[in-house]
Amino acid sequence: MCELLGMSANVPTDICFSFAGLMQRGGKTGPHQDGWGVAFYEGKGCRIFQDHLPSFNSEIAKLVRKYPIKSRNVICHIRKANRGKICLENTHPFVRHLWGRNWCFAHNGQLKGIKKLALKRFDPVGSTDSEYAFCWLLDQITARYTEPPNARQQPKFWAYIESLCLELSQLGIFNILFSDSKYLYAFCSTKLVWITRRAPFGKAKLVDDDVEIDFHMETTPHDVVTVIATAPLTDNEAWFKAEKKEFLVFHQGELLNKFQ
Amino acid sequence: MCELLGMSANVPTDICFSFAGLMQRGGKTGPHQDGWGVAFYEGKGCRIFQDHLPSFNSEIAKLVRKYPIKSRNVICHIRKANRGKICLENTHPFVRHLWGRNWCFAHNGQLKGIKKLALKRFDPVGSTDSEYAFCWLLDQITARYTEPPNARQQPKFWAYIESLCLELSQLGIFNILFSDSKYLYAFCSTKLVWITRRAPFGKAKLVDDDVEIDFHMETTPHDVVTVIATAPLTDNEAWFKAEKKEFLVFHQGELLNKFQ
Repeated sequence: MCELLGMSANVPTDICFSFAGLMQRGGKTGPHQDGWGVAFYEGKGCRIFQDHLPSFNSEIAKLVRKYPIKSRNVICHIRKANRGKICLENTHPFVRHLWGRNWCFAHNGQLKGIKKLALKRFDPVGSTDSEYAFCWLLDQITARYTEPPNARQQPKFWAYIESLCLELSQLGIFNILFSDSKYLYAFCSTKLVWITRRAPFGKAKLVDDDVEIDFHMETTPHDVVTVIATAPLTDNEAWFKAEKKEFLVFHQGELLNKFQ
Repeated sequence: MCELLGMSANVPTDICFSFAGLMQRGGKTGPHQDGWGVAFYEGKGCRIFQDHLPSFNSEIAKLVRKYPIKSRNVICHIRKANRGKICLENTHPFVRHLWGRNWCFAHNGQLKGIKKLALKRFDPVGSTDSEYAFCWLLDQITARYTEPPNARQQPKFWAYIESLCLELSQLGIFNILFSDSKYLYAFCSTKLVWITRRAPFGKAKLVDDDVEIDFHMETTPHDVVTVIATAPLTDNEAWFKAEKKEFLVFHQGELLNKFQ
């Protein structure tokens, strides 16, 4: 199993604090030592750092932890390999291009028989069930939508993605985070929690490391920042627990839609 | 204009020495301060570092310079923006996925009227003529080849890519490096040089920085490493100069094919 971390914010925000906690689970406070990766959306661009080495002592993870890359949309993953060997091409998040946008995807869980589903336009590079599922999702999306949905079509489009996630979750555990660079999507198959931080900001303390932060000092009163993870990263805040089979859509830090 | 650097090797090799030279041209010994990027192929995977900040003082560039990522195939680019604003999505190398492989592309030059060419399956994320040309190339490839060429078809496939490069070079300056993760391709429109280093290895001294290396100490007698660039990176070695309109195919450090 793996761990997921996502962020949606209304202003470019760094994820150093949450990332510091998650990275400890990559071989130190947790067993997820088979690689890690993080995607930062910056405008239409997407910056991905990946390593097949354990995150807690990865040189690249140290850079990401120290260097405050600011983003409105972040997807992060640390891996405990179940299916697919430990190598770069099997490291999440996976990225594909569609409609002039970067799509990123990270998965916690295992899907049985996923490779029996036919693929058409999108092919996996590595051998994970996760990347295969991502390619299948995009294939289904492009089969129904030849162009990106407009604002009016968006809720129907989300309901369609939810139905695809429900279908995939029949094959096993399917906790995912993914983004089309504008929205951050989350599907809870077994475990997913989130927290929305806004003014008045308080202090938070990491579960996995002896680090405390006072968000009041790091933010402006208008900031809205949601963090989503497979398990709470702080032990002094109240995290919402997603229901099983719940599909969530976040935009600019706010929960926009909930399907269940 | 921009600068290109590529490497093809028969064993995973780090590019720290050449990268150290190139990075100085990103705002220090050269005017290419509008971002930089590097793609390292590792097995089927591809690791990309990018920054829209000048390379000579980029934190991420410092990591890449210090951290010996070993690869058989590398494509690197530093940018002097001509078309397209300075931002992450306009930073080379660009990546797309086709036939279960990562394809990376970097361009030096400008193409006039490229956006009049129709695109079908591949869309650009940013606004550069370079990414547009890359998408067009892949569109043409998939229009003719529904699946990857086998070994026997490979020379014909390369001749086809060469014809596409020739067509694009009619629109302006089109020095490029690109790879389908197996082969490293180079097209010389106006300037491209390369050097193949093999035993007996000697010393090399960077043009752009006061750094010397003794490759004899860093290699084994079987290593073959080719470095390709828009301008020689060392001043004590003999670099081959590619002819104008020449298309080169490198594999495992060796020049496989030359089309002109």
